Amino acid sequence: MAATHLQWLDGGITAVPGILAGGVVAGIKPSGKKDLALIYSSTPARAAAVFTSNQVKGAPVLVSSEHVRGGQAQAIVASSGCANVCTGEQGIADAREMTRLVGDLLRIPAGHVLVAATGVIGIPLPMDKIRAAMPNLVKSLSPQGGRAAAEAIMTTDTRPKEAAVRVEIGGRPITIGGIAKGVAMVEPHLATMFCFVASDAAVARGALAPVLRRAVDRSFNRTTIDSDQSTSDTVAILTNGLAENTPLETGSRGIRQFAQGLDAVTTKLARMLVADGEGATKLVTVAVRGAASGRDALHAARAVANSPLVKTAINGQDPNWGRIMMALGKSPARIDPAKIAIAFGDERLVERGMQKEGVRLERVREIMGLSEYEISIDLGLGRGEDRVWTCDLSEEYVRLNAKYTT
Amino acid sequence: MAATHLQWLDGGITAVPGILAGGVVAGIKPSGKKDLALIYSSTPARAAAVFTSNQVKGAPVLVSSEHVRGGQAQAIVASSGCANVCTGEQGIADAREMTRLVGDLLRIPAGHVLVAATGVIGIPLPMDKIRAAMPNLVKSLSPQGGRAAAEAIMTTDTRPKEAAVRVEIGGRPITIGGIAKGVAMVEPHLATMFCFVASDAAVARGALAPVLRRAVDRSFNRTTIDSDQSTSDTVAILTNGLAENTPLETGSRGIRQFAQGLDAVTTKLARMLVADGEGATKLVTVAVRGAASGRDALHAARAVANSPLVKTAINGQDPNWGRIMMALGKSPARIDPAKIAIAFGDERLVERGMQKEGVRLERVREIMGLSEYEISIDLGLGRGEDRVWTCDLSEEYVRLNAKYTT
Repeated sequence: MAATHLQWLDGGITAVPGILAGGVVAGIKPSGKKDLALIYSSTPARAAAVFTSNQVKGAPVLVSSEHVRGGQAQAIVASSGCANVCTGEQGIADAREMTRLVGDLLRIPAGHVLVAATGVIGIPLPMDKIRAAMPNLVKSLSPQGGRAAAEAIMTTDTRPKEAAVRVEIGGRPITIGGIAKGVAMVEPHLATMFCFVASDAAVARGALAPVLRRAVDRSFNRTTIDSDQSTSDTVAILTNGLAENTPLETGSRGIRQFAQGLDAVTTKLARMLVADGEGATKLVTVAVRGAASGRDALHAARAVANSPLVKTAINGQDPNWGRIMMALGKSPARIDPAKIAIAFGDERLVERGMQKEGVRLERVREIMGLSEYEISIDLGLGRGEDRVWTCDLSEEYVRLNAKYTT
Repeated sequence: MAATHLQWLDGGITAVPGILAGGVVAGIKPSGKKDLALIYSSTPARAAAVFTSNQVKGAPVLVSSEHVRGGQAQAIVASSGCANVCTGEQGIADAREMTRLVGDLLRIPAGHVLVAATGVIGIPLPMDKIRAAMPNLVKSLSPQGGRAAAEAIMTTDTRPKEAAVRVEIGGRPITIGGIAKGVAMVEPHLATMFCFVASDAAVARGALAPVLRRAVDRSFNRTTIDSDQSTSDTVAILTNGLAENTPLETGSRGIRQFAQGLDAVTTKLARMLVADGEGATKLVTVAVRGAASGRDALHAARAVANSPLVKTAINGQDPNWGRIMMALGKSPARIDPAKIAIAFGDERLVERGMQKEGVRLERVREIMGLSEYEISIDLGLGRGEDRVWTCDLSEEYVRLNAKYTT
């Protein structure tokens, strides 16, 4: 199918008609920064969500999984500073109470509220502060509030992440917008990351969840910051139908166009996440082609993207390609060292598994000095290809994480 | 079987009768430090070796695999500063030439010489320097030369690693001694690490390799520094029979006693490797019990031992146990969060997956301040147990690796 025409919009989740958002200071974070966010669809919306695959799941993940099961939701409340994970029965009760408080104030069922939390594991939520802040949070809702919500879900993120696009589907403009956060414990299968997306599309029952899963798989599940995997990851989408299009059915041309728009938003947000990884100074695409299978291409790309030695070399702008060979060799992907070619940007550095004669190392160093570039690897075996986004491993990452709770 | 009585000896590989060693400056390392090592058994010895499982294997690994196949060897030559990996046909020719040069000078077949190299990947060995240094290297052989050889195989190691024990087998004293190196690219399945062991035991044909494989599996394969895996790992053992014991047969009491002695030496060297990991300030044993199976226990221990967030918390002496829960949850081991208990040293910190009431966090911080301690995890599910040695992830690790080749 031809690529759907996408028009990028300013802003994020509140670029979508009928979506209000807001963010306030509840006092969960010792820094005194915004730490409580709310997203609200003025009309009931179809909802779908994808959660962490970590076996240790935060209380908000458990409660939201339950609430999203019916396929309907109208609000998402998210807090930062305390993850409400490993907090037992009290944690579950606290997460439930948050949905009830929001539901009461917005006059919607608690079961139509999703909840998410990020921050330190193992300490209880300061519910007194959250209860006290709730009325202000609801008052903060506005059609311009997307940025405040994006700020209120940040932990060590250095900047808020927003993206929005418009796609034409069946002659009608449809808007898809989202916000995200995520800085560490970020690895292939979702991590301390949130992504909340909304759209005014009307989507048929059962058609939304598969499209979301695929979008997550092609975006967030192909990023890595540090190979750790959070207990709280949540990606949720609300579609409120205000665009009054014919509801998009599974398998239709319209849902494929919607999926392209959604992919664009989640991919943009995923790249923003990696670029703002803890201590990160580079956003690097590791693209593998010529693999024996698509699965092998992904294995190979992940092995390179997760290798601490590759990531420190990226940090030091050191064209130490031997570490890429090492990482490919330790991956479960089938390789033949003598067939491997590696390029940094447009400069081919390795051919047949050895340094290319006449390689311009100066050019490679120049490319490694950019804030974004691609490492392309050709395994020379078949037609499998895939790519993963990664960042460098810096002293700042260690500094940030050595003293996180103290 | 009751534990065999072990007597620790001073020194390392040359504590073994009939074993000579030496190390010299060939000029491979720009630093001008020793970079060429030789180990020589004055009589022909039985030999076995284990090599990296990385699909990209250094030329010395390929040549040594071939040479050790017959089960006989008499010398090991090892260089540091250049790994001779990804160097094509020339690399193979260079590795072969090194065994020939040593063989000629020692008047033994080149096929009885093993060769190993560690250092930067992708550049050719400076063979002119190596050729020029060979006569001096052979002259440097002495019964006190174990330390010089241990020094000559160092890269970013901060200290040489040696260990030796004496075991009584069938009334005869048997000596087992070894040297090792390894600082990064070190992960569960062998890494930029060498371990060369020798013994004066007489070992029957076919009995040596299984004992070595088991010793490696219980020692080096249970360490992790950075989860990367080198292309050059080599563990080799020579047994020259000078103890004149009845040759130790597979399945005999004697070979089990020998295995205990060998385990002691390889385990001690493995722990020394981790303690001297690049930038490491702590040696931490991650011990898991109560797993559904032994395999699950190892999976769980490795997930914790390899997590960058756990390793940075160890570095910062931060009792951030939530990250241990996170790492357990992302591992393939079966877990039930509500059954997990975690202790640092003698202080129980987590019970039923939550922070224990009345935990003495001051005591936990005190333990985390030690240079060696144990994190014990009880999964509360079954009888599987295992343990892995790890170190912290420090800013120094990043500093050392960001500019390795430049």
